[in-house]
Amino acid sequence: MTISIAYLGPAGTYSESAAIACAQWLQQSTGSTFELHPYSSIAQTIRAAAEGMSQLAVVPVENSIEGSVTVTLDMLWQLNQLQIQQAIVLPIAHALLSHAATLDTIQTVYAHPQALAQCQEWLEKYLPTASRVAASSNTEALQHLKDNPMAAAIASQRAGQLYEVPTLSYPISDRPDNCTRFWLLSQDSPVNGSHTSVAFSLPANTPGALVKPLQILAARNINMSRIESRPTKRSLGEYLFFIDLEGGIQSTLVQSALAELENCTETLKILGSYNLLAINET
Amino acid sequence: MTISIAYLGPAGTYSESAAIACAQWLQQSTGSTFELHPYSSIAQTIRAAAEGMSQLAVVPVENSIEGSVTVTLDMLWQLNQLQIQQAIVLPIAHALLSHAATLDTIQTVYAHPQALAQCQEWLEKYLPTASRVAASSNTEALQHLKDNPMAAAIASQRAGQLYEVPTLSYPISDRPDNCTRFWLLSQDSPVNGSHTSVAFSLPANTPGALVKPLQILAARNINMSRIESRPTKRSLGEYLFFIDLEGGIQSTLVQSALAELENCTETLKILGSYNLLAINET
Repeated sequence: MTISIAYLGPAGTYSESAAIACAQWLQQSTGSTFELHPYSSIAQTIRAAAEGMSQLAVVPVENSIEGSVTVTLDMLWQLNQLQIQQAIVLPIAHALLSHAATLDTIQTVYAHPQALAQCQEWLEKYLPTASRVAASSNTEALQHLKDNPMAAAIASQRAGQLYEVPTLSYPISDRPDNCTRFWLLSQDSPVNGSHTSVAFSLPANTPGALVKPLQILAARNINMSRIESRPTKRSLGEYLFFIDLEGGIQSTLVQSALAELENCTETLKILGSYNLLAINET
Repeated sequence: MTISIAYLGPAGTYSESAAIACAQWLQQSTGSTFELHPYSSIAQTIRAAAEGMSQLAVVPVENSIEGSVTVTLDMLWQLNQLQIQQAIVLPIAHALLSHAATLDTIQTVYAHPQALAQCQEWLEKYLPTASRVAASSNTEALQHLKDNPMAAAIASQRAGQLYEVPTLSYPISDRPDNCTRFWLLSQDSPVNGSHTSVAFSLPANTPGALVKPLQILAARNINMSRIESRPTKRSLGEYLFFIDLEGGIQSTLVQSALAELENCTETLKILGSYNLLAINET
């Protein structure tokens, strides 16, 4: 049986690396084969799974430097069909790709603004006089290298292989521990993983309303590995909270915490229960 | 005496509207005159005040639909020189600007992707066949209208006046309560306003470490009007928390809460104490 996975394309993005890692891992554990389908935005990738065009979707949720990917959180709150089945942590290791033989000849570096920011110290040290030009994506940056041996792009090594551009230097990220967490989404019911994610809104204008949910977790010694607020989009100062708990949804502790959370939140949504897959290289 | 205010330019941005409102309000209360200086990024605007090129800086911190402006939070944590002196809430009311006489003739609408997203329903209802083209800013979108009566741009009415493009329809935002909160920053010591903002990191790997700070506030009935997490940028899963409290920094309640917070946080920073200025129109 062939299962389709939607991801933020085109081929060569870090999202594709996460989707490939996920497909390989699922293939080993289920025996199914997988087909990857690129989409041009995170919103479209999520909708592909929600509307059944793909059985699975892999989307970024958080980067260790940039923080939350807010569109992913906002869409999971709005849609009610999808559950997180797996979390994937991928190291983001940038490479300098170029047809140049040495660094001396490079006059221009193309990359997405986030990649330029994440390699700023390296660029200042090794390419202080090269001009830096923002591209809409790292793979778009690679288009500028054609027939231009004085240009370089920042992208993953895999992107370099796909677009046939050699790696001139790797890794060039200023922070070696830069990584991104992805979620694998599907319409299946939640499994019982090591983590459970929930989101809730609180009764309006109730001072200290957030303390109660956190006390419910603390009283059971349930660790909260992440809390993130997002605007309700109704009015300034009204928030939704996204919380990742350490514990499976079928454990007695988490079950009793969720039952109590129902009573002190306005709307409570279970986003999924899942295990964590750490990838070693890109 | 003339005081300089840095803001995210160019002229015609919502940041400029916030800076103008702030200058008018300060002029009335202090008698000083003000000079506005545009900068091309939020980071540069904040640095202008931190490095003394401007006495004041006005920067966006939160929009009711898009959420936090993360660069503002990250820079206030990194720099230690600036304090929030005032919060300004500005309604974001988009206008359709064009040299066209009627909607029928418009074939293309230029705007920043956020503005396009915020007027999506209006565009689908009144300009269903017009193509939508993303611009790097709303004021850049206005450049496309020159000598082209079949094009329109989405921006503020003030931008239309500055660039001499008539308003064809106003307001066109899908959510009438769309607004952005700005902070006025300076190197002066914190005043005693109605709100106090703090940021802190927590001791690593301490389950439930966030409960303690929130309990300290709840025990004193101090309302938390906002909580926001940001990555520490050290490793995935380590966060800073930004909290806005209702209460002045010199009040006994807030003082005693801050003293206790010192004991249960890793690093605690006071970002400022300030009042809120609500603007009625743009």
